[in-house]
Amino acid sequence: MEKRTELEEIGEFSLIERLNPKHKILNKSTVLCGGDDCAAMKYNDKITLASTDCLVEGVHFDMAYTPLKHLGYKSAIVNFSDIYACNGKPSQLLVSIAVSNRYSVEALEELYSGLYLACEKYGVDLVGGDMSSSQSGMFLSLTILGECDEEKIVKRSGAKQHDLLCVSGNLGAAYSGLLVLQREKAVFMANSSSQPDLSNYQYIIERQLKPEARKDIIEWFENNNVLPTSMIDISDGLASEVLHICKDSHKGCELYIDKIPVDYETSRTLEEFNILPDNGALNGGEDYELLFTIDQKDYPKIKDNKDISIIGHITDESLGCKLVTPQNTTIDLKARGFNHYC
Amino acid sequence: MEKRTELEEIGEFSLIERLNPKHKILNKSTVLCGGDDCAAMKYNDKITLASTDCLVEGVHFDMAYTPLKHLGYKSAIVNFSDIYACNGKPSQLLVSIAVSNRYSVEALEELYSGLYLACEKYGVDLVGGDMSSSQSGMFLSLTILGECDEEKIVKRSGAKQHDLLCVSGNLGAAYSGLLVLQREKAVFMANSSSQPDLSNYQYIIERQLKPEARKDIIEWFENNNVLPTSMIDISDGLASEVLHICKDSHKGCELYIDKIPVDYETSRTLEEFNILPDNGALNGGEDYELLFTIDQKDYPKIKDNKDISIIGHITDESLGCKLVTPQNTTIDLKARGFNHYC
Repeated sequence: MEKRTELEEIGEFSLIERLNPKHKILNKSTVLCGGDDCAAMKYNDKITLASTDCLVEGVHFDMAYTPLKHLGYKSAIVNFSDIYACNGKPSQLLVSIAVSNRYSVEALEELYSGLYLACEKYGVDLVGGDMSSSQSGMFLSLTILGECDEEKIVKRSGAKQHDLLCVSGNLGAAYSGLLVLQREKAVFMANSSSQPDLSNYQYIIERQLKPEARKDIIEWFENNNVLPTSMIDISDGLASEVLHICKDSHKGCELYIDKIPVDYETSRTLEEFNILPDNGALNGGEDYELLFTIDQKDYPKIKDNKDISIIGHITDESLGCKLVTPQNTTIDLKARGFNHYC
Repeated sequence: MEKRTELEEIGEFSLIERLNPKHKILNKSTVLCGGDDCAAMKYNDKITLASTDCLVEGVHFDMAYTPLKHLGYKSAIVNFSDIYACNGKPSQLLVSIAVSNRYSVEALEELYSGLYLACEKYGVDLVGGDMSSSQSGMFLSLTILGECDEEKIVKRSGAKQHDLLCVSGNLGAAYSGLLVLQREKAVFMANSSSQPDLSNYQYIIERQLKPEARKDIIEWFENNNVLPTSMIDISDGLASEVLHICKDSHKGCELYIDKIPVDYETSRTLEEFNILPDNGALNGGEDYELLFTIDQKDYPKIKDNKDISIIGHITDESLGCKLVTPQNTTIDLKARGFNHYC
C-alpha cells in the first residue's frame, strides 16, 4: 500500500520544505527563490510579463479522470501559454494551492512532480508559492512571469486591416478528449467494474490531460524574423479568441470555416457525439494553440510551415466578424465558448 | 433593496470588464495592464520581487464578520507586506478569484473596491487577474510584484551575531480582535437578536479586519540610511518569525518577553480570554508588523523611533533560540503560530 501522510501531521512549513524547489535554477534572472517573503528576479532592459490563472476542482478539472501529475503539468502549461501569447519567454512560476484534508502529502507531491516536469521542459523556475487548507476540494492559482524585448511584445490590439489570421496546430482536440473522458466517467459511475478502452482516443485525451504550450512557434517567429501584429492563446475556443482580437483591435474579420485545422481523431470523435467538427473546433476550449495575425508581407515565410494554418483575414470594423461557409455564404461569428459561471 | 446581479447573468468577460481597472496607472513600470494574456512591466536596473498568497473562506476569513470591502483591502495589504519585508516597494498586483454563485456581482464589486482602495493608498497598480466559479465558498489568490535596488534587498538569512532584534508597532492586536469577533459570532448564532457592543474593541478589531502594511517603516529606513541585516513580516506570530530568521541565518537569539510591545486594549482583551498577553503577542498571527535585525552601529538611529522596539539580540547558533523572562530565566522559544492544516 502506498504511504499516506496526512497534511495535519506535518504542518505548513515542513510541507513547503518537502515540496520546495531543490532543482537547479534555470534562469539567470532568478535572484532569490523560495524561503523568503518574496522571490526576486532581475531583468536587464527587458519587459517583465506576468499572468495568473486559477483552476478549481469540479470546474476546471475532475479528479475522477485527472491524474494529479497531469493536473500539475497542465496547470503550468496553461500559464506558460499566456506568456507565449505575448511573444515572451516564461521564466518564473509562483503556485498557490488550497486543498482539503482529503488530499495526502503524497498526492501533493504527485501534483508538484507534474509542475516541475513542465518547468524543466520549458526552462522555467518555480520560485515561490503559498499553501493552505480548504473546506472542500482543491484550488490552484498559478502566476507566471516572463521576459520579452520591449519592441517584440505582441498585444491583442495590434491587428491591421488585410492582415492574415493564422492559427497553430489543430483545434477541438482537447474538447473532444474531454467529451470522451466525461462519457467514460458516466459509464464507470453506472458500473464500476467496466474497464474503458481508450486506445482509439489517445491523441485527443492527451491533448485534454497533458497539453503543450507553443514554445516552438514563438521560437520559429524569432528564427524567421516574423513578428505577429496581434496574438492570443486559445483557451476559451477559437470563436471567442477571434472576437477578442477584433474587438481590441477595432477591426472585423472573415474566418473561413473550411480552413480551420481539425485532426482526424478529433473530427471522428465529435461526430460520435453528434457535434459538427467545425462547431467543436470553433467553440471547444483548452487547445492552447496560438491565434495570431501577420502582415501579408510575411506570407511567403509562413506559407510552408505545416504547423500554421491561415484561416482568414482582418477587415474593417464596420464589416463585423464573419464566418464564411464552404458554400461561400457568410454568417455572424458568435462565441459560445466556455463560461465557468454557468 | 440592493440590486443583486447573478454571476451567470453576465458571464466572465463582462464581469472582468465590470471589475477591470479603469483607474490611473500609478507606476511608470506598468506597460500593459488588463485585457491581454499578460500584464507587462519594465524595471530598469531594478530587482523585481514577486510574492503570492491565498486566502480561503472558512480558513482565513469568516463571512459572518468580514465585510467584503475589508476582505479585499486586507488581502492586498497581506501581499504588500511581503514586499516590504524584503525592503521593496510593491508596484503591481494580480488577483485570482473563485466564488460560488452565492456571491453576486455587487458582492464582488465590494471586494474589488477594497482591493482598489488598498492599491491607491499604497501606490500599486492592479494589472491583471483571473476569475472563476467554485463549488463552495470563496478563494482568493493574489500575486504582488515589487521593485528593489539590488544592493538593498533584505533577506531572512542575513542576521549576524550581536545584531539587535527589532519589531515595528505592537503585537497580538489582530489576534485579540479575532477572538472578540469569534465570540460575538457565537453569541449571535445563539441569539440572532443580540446586538454586539464593540466600542471597547475598536482598535483591535480594525487591526484584524483592516490591517495596514508598514510602508512607513521601509521609508524610514530609506530616509535614515538604515539597512536591516534581515527582515520578515509577522503573519504567523512573532515566535514563528523569529525562528525563521534564526534558522535561515544559522544563528540563535535572546528575546526579552518584557520588551515585546503590546497595546493596552490588546492586553486587556487577551486577559478577558484568560490568555497571557505575552503568549498572545508571541503566537497570535496577522499583525503584519515587520521583524528585523540591525547592526549595533545603527542603534543610535533607531533608539528614538517610538514605533520600533528592540526586543532582543542575535547570538551564536549553538546557544539556540531563547526567551528571557522578566525574572531573567531563559526558556526555549517555540512556535505555536497558525497552522492552517490543523
